[in-house]
Amino acid sequence: MDKPTPQGDEVLIKIGGAGVCHSDLHVIHDGIMGEDPQPFTLGHENAGWIEATGNGVKGFKKGDAVLVYGPWGCGHCKPCQQSAENYCDHQSENPYGGGLGLNGGMADFMLVPSSRLLVHIKDLDPVVAAPLTDAALTPYAAIRRSKDKLTSDAFVVVLGIGGLGHVALQILKATSAATIIAGDVTADKLQLAKDHGADFVINTTDDDVVSQIQKITGIKKAAVVLDFVGIQPTINIGQQVVGLNGDLTIVGLGGGHLDFHAMAVPLGTRISTPYWGTRVELMEVIELARHGKIKIDIEKYKLEQAHEVYDKLLNGKIKGRAVLTP
Amino acid sequence: MDKPTPQGDEVLIKIGGAGVCHSDLHVIHDGIMGEDPQPFTLGHENAGWIEATGNGVKGFKKGDAVLVYGPWGCGHCKPCQQSAENYCDHQSENPYGGGLGLNGGMADFMLVPSSRLLVHIKDLDPVVAAPLTDAALTPYAAIRRSKDKLTSDAFVVVLGIGGLGHVALQILKATSAATIIAGDVTADKLQLAKDHGADFVINTTDDDVVSQIQKITGIKKAAVVLDFVGIQPTINIGQQVVGLNGDLTIVGLGGGHLDFHAMAVPLGTRISTPYWGTRVELMEVIELARHGKIKIDIEKYKLEQAHEVYDKLLNGKIKGRAVLTP
Amino acid sequence: MDKPTPQGDEVLIKIGGAGVCHSDLHVIHDGIMGEDPQPFTLGHENAGWIEATGNGVKGFKKGDAVLVYGPWGCGHCKPCQQSAENYCDHQSENPYGGGLGLNGGMADFMLVPSSRLLVHIKDLDPVVAAPLTDAALTPYAAIRRSKDKLTSDAFVVVLGIGGLGHVALQILKATSAATIIAGDVTADKLQLAKDHGADFVINTTDDDVVSQIQKITGIKKAAVVLDFVGIQPTINIGQQVVGLNGDLTIVGLGGGHLDFHAMAVPLGTRISTPYWGTRVELMEVIELARHGKIKIDIEKYKLEQAHEVYDKLLNGKIKGRAVLTP
Amino acid sequence: MDKPTPQGDEVLIKIGGAGVCHSDLHVIHDGIMGEDPQPFTLGHENAGWIEATGNGVKGFKKGDAVLVYGPWGCGHCKPCQQSAENYCDHQSENPYGGGLGLNGGMADFMLVPSSRLLVHIKDLDPVVAAPLTDAALTPYAAIRRSKDKLTSDAFVVVLGIGGLGHVALQILKATSAATIIAGDVTADKLQLAKDHGADFVINTTDDDVVSQIQKITGIKKAAVVLDFVGIQPTINIGQQVVGLNGDLTIVGLGGGHLDFHAMAVPLGTRISTPYWGTRVELMEVIELARHGKIKIDIEKYKLEQAHEVYDKLLNGKIKGRAVLTP
Repeated sequence: MDKPTPQGDEVLIKIGGAGVCHSDLHVIHDGIMGEDPQPFTLGHENAGWIEATGNGVKGFKKGDAVLVYGPWGCGHCKPCQQSAENYCDHQSENPYGGGLGLNGGMADFMLVPSSRLLVHIKDLDPVVAAPLTDAALTPYAAIRRSKDKLTSDAFVVVLGIGGLGHVALQILKATSAATIIAGDVTADKLQLAKDHGADFVINTTDDDVVSQIQKITGIKKAAVVLDFVGIQPTINIGQQVVGLNGDLTIVGLGGGHLDFHAMAVPLGTRISTPYWGTRVELMEVIELARHGKIKIDIEKYKLEQAHEVYDKLLNGKIKGRAVLTP
Repeated sequence: MDKPTPQGDEVLIKIGGAGVCHSDLHVIHDGIMGEDPQPFTLGHENAGWIEATGNGVKGFKKGDAVLVYGPWGCGHCKPCQQSAENYCDHQSENPYGGGLGLNGGMADFMLVPSSRLLVHIKDLDPVVAAPLTDAALTPYAAIRRSKDKLTSDAFVVVLGIGGLGHVALQILKATSAATIIAGDVTADKLQLAKDHGADFVINTTDDDVVSQIQKITGIKKAAVVLDFVGIQPTINIGQQVVGLNGDLTIVGLGGGHLDFHAMAVPLGTRISTPYWGTRVELMEVIELARHGKIKIDIEKYKLEQAHEVYDKLLNGKIKGRAVLTP
Repeated sequence: MDKPTPQGDEVLIKIGGAGVCHSDLHVIHDGIMGEDPQPFTLGHENAGWIEATGNGVKGFKKGDAVLVYGPWGCGHCKPCQQSAENYCDHQSENPYGGGLGLNGGMADFMLVPSSRLLVHIKDLDPVVAAPLTDAALTPYAAIRRSKDKLTSDAFVVVLGIGGLGHVALQILKATSAATIIAGDVTADKLQLAKDHGADFVINTTDDDVVSQIQKITGIKKAAVVLDFVGIQPTINIGQQVVGLNGDLTIVGLGGGHLDFHAMAVPLGTRISTPYWGTRVELMEVIELARHGKIKIDIEKYKLEQAHEVYDKLLNGKIKGRAVLTP
Repeated sequence: MDKPTPQGDEVLIKIGGAGVCHSDLHVIHDGIMGEDPQPFTLGHENAGWIEATGNGVKGFKKGDAVLVYGPWGCGHCKPCQQSAENYCDHQSENPYGGGLGLNGGMADFMLVPSSRLLVHIKDLDPVVAAPLTDAALTPYAAIRRSKDKLTSDAFVVVLGIGGLGHVALQILKATSAATIIAGDVTADKLQLAKDHGADFVINTTDDDVVSQIQKITGIKKAAVVLDFVGIQPTINIGQQVVGLNGDLTIVGLGGGHLDFHAMAVPLGTRISTPYWGTRVELMEVIELARHGKIKIDIEKYKLEQAHEVYDKLLNGKIKGRAVLTP
């Protein structure tokens, strides 16, 4: 069992839970870490307890329950200084973070390079909290980008009610009064959407899915579309249901394309693929969870079951979020 | 000479000047007003004096010098209530405005359907002011979309130093401390860019244009790219020089495409094609002009010379902005 | 029965309901309309149906159910162009609006000077909707001023759970995940607060009210204080419980004072008395009501009972909001 | 010569320059550090070169030229995570920073408790840069609070053209197109104001100062008032010239009061006393200085002359900013 001694501002975390994420499959199978990367331990959704601190650490002590913020930046550039390490100026030069190029949390212990990357979770259970750092933070940040558009008279379309999408619905319900239209491909996903606050649900395999949505929104269409799938069919839907000066936010890395030109989407509409969120947003996510306003369905596995869990994930057999515990 | 009598909230304008815009060429040649549109008078950059008012008009009187705001919305929806008629919920149901589906200002008089579409220009000359309503308002609104990114440590790339681009430079200089990198294809356009405040100028036909820009911006790249051309080469440049969580704003309708997918532009970066601006932004533009902070180079022609002027425009023979006067 | 004929952009409303507001008492007793004002009909919370339209009116027709927006500005200045007539540049020169210097809605009919001052209420009952235009719009706008501070980790203190305060709680619950601490002076007001979403309730007559609140908020104190009373005791409480760089928003015109100097409130904290809201915010309020997210308790009276109702109001005998119907 | 060895994330700075600030006089004479504080070295505007780093420091190395950010927070709370340590949740529990309760820069060396408190100044001279950290950052942050109001049609009133005010004018000129009205009490201060970009200057001892300002602004009055004096006369002026829904920002700690109640300032107007700025804002300030857009007049003294310099400061004999050099 590897148990390094933290130096300077480093912190050693005794892992309580490490979330299993679809992105890991891209890391394993699609080589998104670049050609011939250094080997590293997976696990970028990590929570646990502080085991030891370097001599420069202040504000954290042995035994504190913490989440590990995922995207690790340089710490000094302007985005990093605002806790937006997900958009660190030096992102192209560095590994993305623990579990994404550097050693992550699918282990007994994890060495975090700086205490600034930790967030206190207080009375939350690390096993439950681990997935918050991605499966809740990512949709939270995507929603916050559009916060000024999510007024009570607006429609928001959420495509894909999986690991991130079902949390997105809860966040929308907790923080806005916009009318939520949720789309997915199976009856139980649509039921899940209703359970988590969708005002309308649509089966996106219906031929007339676009006109169903437009019938709800009327001529102004949706102010915001959040696509947690990103495959060609969902991108095509988003493109047709988003309104003038709206936000078409494609979070899911499903490989779809959109041929952007002057008339591809309504005038003024912004298309983007956001990435993760800021540490300050993670603090807000933790409070949502602490107040019971978001809840991720967890399936708990032992660390030794990792291979089995990734197989299940690949075959769509995981409901909610799998968490590995040492 | 057609001189209608305004009813209700209508206002009759005695035209002082009507700007000649590239968009008119699209109207004339490309059928962008739909199939088989009703005939209408061109001219969507109009200024003049009030000649007569309907019985419901308040706050305007005969002789007042005014600009005619270009995009005419329904007046009642939420965007219209904020003076953002450029994004009227009912845009798809209605003509775009005077000179764009309805009678415009290339005439002695123009009937404006509501006094709400007029803005006082005070001591500005209508001939000089006419192009402000599009050639200044459009870049102004494009810049305002990104205002929070245009800090002193940011780089903004302006592509195309023509009718809109040379005004964009002046607006950027007057309202921000961002470092401006301007690109165009001829030496005199680059000189024009320098004269109007560009900190760096680049010939965009250079093979290494992207690396020239990146050498200036460093690793964080440009926070904002404003593309006033929108042809394939400029879109390709913009795509490569915009930074993480940036704004790639394509104003020019040059027919270029961008194959958008998860890695097409840096994570978080928003791509959009904005359209014109709000009436409140037009008020701000007018004050910039009144204070001498923006100045559009005007070539003055008689209304009878319209055909000749459009020929010149088509052949790139107009410097600055042509304005027709009755 | 006075039934004027609307001209130009004027609209005649057949009143469905006119809300009775505390401000009317200030109008009647305190001379806040200036010395020796022209006589006018009271009633600034008005809803009904369109009875007739002037020849310049577009987008409204006889029979439409509408709310009358309360603060009437010049219509042309920058705030008015954004529908913020509550902050019209010319406010000091003009009467405040119908029922506040000009004829209001405590009558069978009301003449509204411009169709721009009307908002469609669709399927809402005008009797129920009337108070939305002040009793809901005013707290809504006060809350929107602080929207970026009302995150899930923030505390908001609401003082005074009366006509406006009980709506404020519902708005906060519908549009934010902030923790709500409500204060009032009687057990049934505190029960009302709980019913409408307060997370904590405090009797503000308790000697240790400040330490009770600080115990909940901890050292960072409240991000936002909304004082719907404005008497000396509530102002004193707000001053002590608001945190650094917070918002102390005093809506209630209770006559209290705050001796502002560098150390009077935490550094960075903004003190203000907002006034009413924008027409766009009223549209959002109407959607909250239509979706059942806010509900004002109504007591319905006949127009002839007006004197009796004002007596009750003066003596604190009205629960919720009284509405007069012709 | 005290030369401690930095541990963990600590950094030892070889001081290049330490600015002399009016606030020091309050520290020395007015006991604003609390009763019976521990002794400490003055100097909260510090720049120099890194002399040594603790073992946990990353991103900085010996010889780097840096500014020391002034307000030192806990580093972990939400404001600190956004670099807004000026509003740290734990401010009331801790000393304010180096030179304000902890050892500052009026020495050969200064120990900074964390590398996060340093900002690279690149090619700027530390002697010139030192005052940026307060005399430029404080007005910069005060202006940024009102950035959305500083449009080309707005008026901003700047009261007090001293150490902070003359920088405020330069910042306003560089980052906005608002019309600037500057007020002070002597002809050479008013000349200084003109030199640094004021559009209008007013002697604030004139009897009719308020009507002079209102004549310039017209009925809408000033959108923003920045009071860098804070004595009773300037507060009285600010109160009368600020407009509806404006910002009355009192930076100067001159001891003046404002009796706040519902009608004390125009409806909607926010009164506040901001404190210093964020580290991200300091980065922006540094770029303004590097690009020559702000320039602080410096008087250079030897560290041994400190007493003499404070005497001069007390007697108004320092023009611009005094900087002590070891």
